[in-house]
Amino acid sequence: MREVFHQSLEDVQTRLVEIAELVTVAIDKATRSFSTSDVALAEEVIADDKLIDERAVALDELAIEILAMQQPVARDLRIVVTALRVSASLERMGDMAEHIAQLARTRYPERAIPKGLKGTFTKMGELDVQIARTLTELLRTQDLKIADHIRNSDDDVDELHASVFEKVLSDSWQGEAGATVDATLASRYHERFADHAVSIAKKVIYLGTGDWAADDPVTDLPV
Amino acid sequence: MREVFHQSLEDVQTRLVEIAELVTVAIDKATRSFSTSDVALAEEVIADDKLIDERAVALDELAIEILAMQQPVARDLRIVVTALRVSASLERMGDMAEHIAQLARTRYPERAIPKGLKGTFTKMGELDVQIARTLTELLRTQDLKIADHIRNSDDDVDELHASVFEKVLSDSWQGEAGATVDATLASRYHERFADHAVSIAKKVIYLGTGDWAADDPVTDLPV
Repeated sequence: MREVFHQSLEDVQTRLVEIAELVTVAIDKATRSFSTSDVALAEEVIADDKLIDERAVALDELAIEILAMQQPVARDLRIVVTALRVSASLERMGDMAEHIAQLARTRYPERAIPKGLKGTFTKMGELDVQIARTLTELLRTQDLKIADHIRNSDDDVDELHASVFEKVLSDSWQGEAGATVDATLASRYHERFADHAVSIAKKVIYLGTGDWAADDPVTDLPV
Repeated sequence: MREVFHQSLEDVQTRLVEIAELVTVAIDKATRSFSTSDVALAEEVIADDKLIDERAVALDELAIEILAMQQPVARDLRIVVTALRVSASLERMGDMAEHIAQLARTRYPERAIPKGLKGTFTKMGELDVQIARTLTELLRTQDLKIADHIRNSDDDVDELHASVFEKVLSDSWQGEAGATVDATLASRYHERFADHAVSIAKKVIYLGTGDWAADDPVTDLPV
């Protein structure tokens, strides 16, 4: 019975890693399509988001099945409940990548990245891809040391996000309303992508150490 | 034992209704503060979001405790897992209300709603408040008939959301970059608020009927 259960938990972890890998591919393609106005690449991201959704649903069904059939307690229960939450966050990260790709597709054949923000969005995209890769490694290895990289990269994304608004609201901004809308939405999508990754990393750390790296000790709890 | 369990499930439902009531107050105050540039009201929403977060965390802890101690199966298990998901969505709805209030506070003493969009955002706000009230009733009564109201109102919010972008991207849009940014963000917050409510309603309907009102039969599953 324990062996079956142990296998089920390993299955959950494997599936989480697979979804994280799909999300990494998605954000890599999405940010590249956004940067280079590559509509074919954007179409791939948009179509493949369905696969991420399906895998998340399948993982959730497995988690519920484990709860029903194996009735885990203590740490094993927390692992399964955490998997449900991580799955939901990964699915939203896939949505953010899909939204970025949608922007690239909608503006085609015009440039998707507004003039004057190319460097900023290229960096944000690279950070998001790095975050996704590190997150995948974290889920695969449970090596908590690498979790710090995710938080640091998220801080960098937040700074770039703030700089987008600084630029867009400055006197020197020459973009028309369309460029302003795109910059606002794209920046938010990149920022939310990173936020979700941090949220996942915190839960993984808590599972591993019992330590909660709370931003707010009262409300920022690891459930 | 069954009695204790039954009481626990009722406790879960009561707590969900309480959080939904807090979210209703939050969106009502937030949209009013946004509409009238009432910074005191906005400050209340921002401060009170912490309470919504705390209540959601407490509910999640209770749900996990029920899973650990009572080890529910079948429908009872689905109720508890659904409660975890609904709690997360309600918490995000609270965040959306807080984001709307932040916009109102940041622009103060200037008007938060960009010129030419007052009617639109007033309507979106009223719809969101109505959606929150109906959602609270749904969670309280489990009366599935009222769930349709939520979906219809969400359709109306989506239409208004599209109209915001139409207006902002039209030749007649006279707003500067700041107004464009605010319109973009505010519209998205109102739209996401309604989306989360629909997501919750679908899960409640599924619990009640076993029927899933899927938008996409493959990926839009009730887990």
